[in-house]
Amino acid sequence: MKKHNFSAGPSILPQFTIEKTAEGIKDFAGSGLSVMEVSHRGKDFVAVMDEAQALFRELLNIPEDYSVLFLGGGASLQFCMIPYNLMSKKAAYLNTGAWSAKAIKEAKFFGEVVEVASSKDTVYNYIPKDFEVPADADYFHFTSNNTIYGTQIRKDFDLDIPVVCDMSSDIFSRKIDVSKYGIIYGGAQKNLAPAGVAFVIIKNDLVGKVDRAIPTMLNYQTHIDGGSMFNTPPVVPIFAALQTLKWLKANGGIEAMEKINEEKAALLYDEIDRNPVFKGTVLNKEDRSLMNVCFIMNDGYEALEKEFLEFATGKGMSAIKGHRSVGGFRASIYNAMPKSSIQALIDCMQEFEKKHAK
Amino acid sequence: MKKHNFSAGPSILPQFTIEKTAEGIKDFAGSGLSVMEVSHRGKDFVAVMDEAQALFRELLNIPEDYSVLFLGGGASLQFCMIPYNLMSKKAAYLNTGAWSAKAIKEAKFFGEVVEVASSKDTVYNYIPKDFEVPADADYFHFTSNNTIYGTQIRKDFDLDIPVVCDMSSDIFSRKIDVSKYGIIYGGAQKNLAPAGVAFVIIKNDLVGKVDRAIPTMLNYQTHIDGGSMFNTPPVVPIFAALQTLKWLKANGGIEAMEKINEEKAALLYDEIDRNPVFKGTVLNKEDRSLMNVCFIMNDGYEALEKEFLEFATGKGMSAIKGHRSVGGFRASIYNAMPKSSIQALIDCMQEFEKKHAK
Repeated sequence: MKKHNFSAGPSILPQFTIEKTAEGIKDFAGSGLSVMEVSHRGKDFVAVMDEAQALFRELLNIPEDYSVLFLGGGASLQFCMIPYNLMSKKAAYLNTGAWSAKAIKEAKFFGEVVEVASSKDTVYNYIPKDFEVPADADYFHFTSNNTIYGTQIRKDFDLDIPVVCDMSSDIFSRKIDVSKYGIIYGGAQKNLAPAGVAFVIIKNDLVGKVDRAIPTMLNYQTHIDGGSMFNTPPVVPIFAALQTLKWLKANGGIEAMEKINEEKAALLYDEIDRNPVFKGTVLNKEDRSLMNVCFIMNDGYEALEKEFLEFATGKGMSAIKGHRSVGGFRASIYNAMPKSSIQALIDCMQEFEKKHAK
Repeated sequence: MKKHNFSAGPSILPQFTIEKTAEGIKDFAGSGLSVMEVSHRGKDFVAVMDEAQALFRELLNIPEDYSVLFLGGGASLQFCMIPYNLMSKKAAYLNTGAWSAKAIKEAKFFGEVVEVASSKDTVYNYIPKDFEVPADADYFHFTSNNTIYGTQIRKDFDLDIPVVCDMSSDIFSRKIDVSKYGIIYGGAQKNLAPAGVAFVIIKNDLVGKVDRAIPTMLNYQTHIDGGSMFNTPPVVPIFAALQTLKWLKANGGIEAMEKINEEKAALLYDEIDRNPVFKGTVLNKEDRSLMNVCFIMNDGYEALEKEFLEFATGKGMSAIKGHRSVGGFRASIYNAMPKSSIQALIDCMQEFEKKHAK
């Protein structure tokens, strides 16, 4: 039976990425050696790094005065590297979910955090809109897509202070204007590569402005100067990321991806809104994520939650259980998720509806 | 033509590891999904993490009161995490090479560093023996194998303060008594896995003794409490590491590995000492590394260096050029390097000798 991989992350990757990575593990660039066992300073791997950075620039239209870095430690390490490098006195954070909250926690090690708004009280089921960012903050941080709650901010903020965004779960899924950001970062394990590498798109002139001493590996300047090769980088995740970037380009780039993602999400949200057995969890439709679609059993059908999980799982729907803090179901439909898998989930929902018609 | 991979790191891995990793990339544990695209919290990956930690414990005979962690960021990030977590006032470091020096540089961000001895003045061509470690230091740090210079410390220090050792390039190559150490750590990309994961074997009661606030990801307590799964770990490098650990166990474990490594190194060093065209670079034979064999052209043969590099490379010897700070040649002969490849290099050296007989 075909599995439909709705995992929130690590999550579905293009079949192209999977096949090319398996090939590179066996024989890298015709070298007779595995990509796992060659020097990262050798010309073959340097070419991988160069091409991955160039495709990041091309696909996202990244201005010249930004660097593209691939670092170990995941987005979680970035939560502390950002204030370590950028916060002199205070920073502004928008709290839209558990990951925003984790970023806030780390920032507090380095100075004052102004939480400009929060939707925590209602389990993050909406995106706060009315807030002011203090003009004297060192930077403003937000999380563009909230994987757990299925909310998303699909706009670029226009501020006079640097904007820092965690795009772990929606990078490459929609058009963005990089020039409006100071840093865009994220773990790779949603739309890009296996876990083990974080991408950091950073405006070069942001660093070097704080007074504190910064250990070498935690200093963005180190990695900007080293072209992301100061130390041995995570070679396999970067090699896999390159394959995904090639796949993205071959499939029309961000513009085409955004259009397909809008269509895919609309299919599923329309079914959730139509089907009397289910309902969405996000308060306002405009806050709904195109990447993570969260829904629960509708009023009167609550007792059937476990049954639907088993029913859908039995039909090949993998990892659709919602996060424990939201309950119900979550279908993560990243770039690599084909429409046919979404249709398969919709078929399950409709079949289940018929089974339990009232 | 068969390639003999003498790369210093990332470096040769067992064929078993390469094949099993390629298989897991295509289909993980019969799930129909790639190991790159499944949740790290799912039972299949949790089993990988559990087995990798258990095999670390079994192969190295790690006492119960130690944790085994697999972290992102490489050994370079550990250079700062160690003093961040352990240094209150001062720490003692032995300087035996470029990597020791890098570790020292990071420690200085956190307090006073006592360099107990250094062989820097002679390009690190020996291991200092006569030094005293201050009894009031918070810990003593050394690098057991110096990849660039081909020196190695094959003994466990017996001190009253915690001993911290960077074993990046000789872990699993020889017997060690873990109970004599506070922390053993290293990048995985020599004897274990592809780059992108660092292993940390840490005595649990070492942490929590310094006064400074430690950001969450840099705090060992976080990773001890989280069973090395606080955040998404580098799944592919850990999956590959598990394959190497299985291979190690199936091949007799550390004891068998040490015996073979001694035989392999003796073969090559004997040839270097016998062959009039070459000479070793390490001052004292007892300091010679079993992992990285460094040699240069002997007196009178200096002009032939480039010719030998081309000659040997043409016969399939890959990555034997020495590090620029030492020059000449370096044959890295990690666990996975078969005797037949060492014999192939020796054959090259003997053929070259005949060609240039004086």
